[in-house]
Amino acid sequence: MIVYLNGEYIDQTAAKISVDDRGFLFADGIYEVARVYNGRIFLMQPHMERLRHGLRELRIRTDVASDLPAIAERLLDENKLRGGDATIYIEVTRGAAPRAHAFPSPEVAPTVYVLAKPFKNHPEKYWTDGVSALTMPDTRWSRCDIKSIALLPNVLANQQAHEAGAFEALFVRDGVLIEGSHSNLWGVIDGTAVTYQSCGYILGGITRKLLLERAHEAGVQAREAPIRVDELPNVQELFLSGTTTEVMPIVKVDQQTIGDGRPGPVTRKLQEAFKQWRRT
Amino acid sequence: MIVYLNGEYIDQTAAKISVDDRGFLFADGIYEVARVYNGRIFLMQPHMERLRHGLRELRIRTDVASDLPAIAERLLDENKLRGGDATIYIEVTRGAAPRAHAFPSPEVAPTVYVLAKPFKNHPEKYWTDGVSALTMPDTRWSRCDIKSIALLPNVLANQQAHEAGAFEALFVRDGVLIEGSHSNLWGVIDGTAVTYQSCGYILGGITRKLLLERAHEAGVQAREAPIRVDELPNVQELFLSGTTTEVMPIVKVDQQTIGDGRPGPVTRKLQEAFKQWRRT
Repeated sequence: MIVYLNGEYIDQTAAKISVDDRGFLFADGIYEVARVYNGRIFLMQPHMERLRHGLRELRIRTDVASDLPAIAERLLDENKLRGGDATIYIEVTRGAAPRAHAFPSPEVAPTVYVLAKPFKNHPEKYWTDGVSALTMPDTRWSRCDIKSIALLPNVLANQQAHEAGAFEALFVRDGVLIEGSHSNLWGVIDGTAVTYQSCGYILGGITRKLLLERAHEAGVQAREAPIRVDELPNVQELFLSGTTTEVMPIVKVDQQTIGDGRPGPVTRKLQEAFKQWRRT
Repeated sequence: MIVYLNGEYIDQTAAKISVDDRGFLFADGIYEVARVYNGRIFLMQPHMERLRHGLRELRIRTDVASDLPAIAERLLDENKLRGGDATIYIEVTRGAAPRAHAFPSPEVAPTVYVLAKPFKNHPEKYWTDGVSALTMPDTRWSRCDIKSIALLPNVLANQQAHEAGAFEALFVRDGVLIEGSHSNLWGVIDGTAVTYQSCGYILGGITRKLLLERAHEAGVQAREAPIRVDELPNVQELFLSGTTTEVMPIVKVDQQTIGDGRPGPVTRKLQEAFKQWRRT
């Protein structure tokens, strides 16, 4: 696999970073994952907007973002990924410098790493039958709107869900279901699809945004609102959204069955609509 | 400088890690910094105990810790650091594997990196005259007892303090001063030295522990208790503790002078005692 690292297109096995990289020492960086359908990158523009938001918040030069779409396209060609499903992974860190918390002075060149690889999808039944999820306390920081590589809490939560045979961990803060360890969460309450409001407690998901903006095209009302854990018995449907998760029904949370235990009509409408959108 | 990386003693410029390292992708790792006085490592044992705590919490094999003291000693020899002041930096990550949140299965070998380098200390006046600090909201996760490399919030806070000409950022949670971005915080209230209680909101500092256990030898009472921001006008003294910070007086917080604006008697007693302890 050919990857991009700091200006070079090289084999991934040769792609090495310095032990002084602030991504390795401080999680001082951000990332993006974009989905490729039939060789075409889906929604690259909003991914780049979110990346720029992260760079601004971390005060890393935003001009590193300019070349990323072209780099991603070239990697799809180099790796002969024009025929099928793939993902683009992008990571930008503040660069390599002797270890000290404050930013290096003078500034150093950011580290830019891009990987395009074939996407090995989950089994189709995850979407047709739904998955289960496990709730756990939200231990994360309060700037989850930054898609930072400081993902240790997400890793630990995801692993715990994985070991319990669940697809996703759902973070709970003050009795409210916030989002998953690597996806946004939606509920259907009184027929409306709701997801936690945009703030520092959640990542502004690209698929979440797409659904908020275009759900009406599928005849579904969508808006921002909290879902309390104690509301779960009355929630009609529950689903996840995400770049690789797409629109995935949740039919069980902890030991509790959601709705009638099968993907509901609102979720299915949005799944169908999403299939249309991703073609265009 | 010769460093240790995964079984090899190599020049630091040749020490490279994989772009698949989970330290680089997920901040899925922990670290330690130990101080070397006159060529001897100070309090290596408690540093290793804390490292093991972190490994257990992350469920990384704890046996990687066994060789670390010998590796650190060898690096002091290799780099001719027996004559003076130095630091040992240790980082252990879950290792390199294709990117997925859940732990790699089968398990991969952890990445182990150790660096010994000469210590360039802060100016002496930081200790004799005291430093200033800046308060800011504690945005961090709730497992700060794990000395993880997910340090992005600490980096951003430290940089903000740095730009304001302050030595340290003090994190405030629910109106209470919790700790610094890279040190523990102490106040002197009614003659007693107090520091925030051991829990997930603070790192269990090695110097903090030393002070709690041995302050009485300096004729100082020390115990765990919160310091509220609104108590600052009545706090007699304020100081930081840390492996490289040692016992450092704070004489100003934001625009507020602490005590009479000079290091107080309790802080000075503990500084003197610390000088004795580090010799033994």
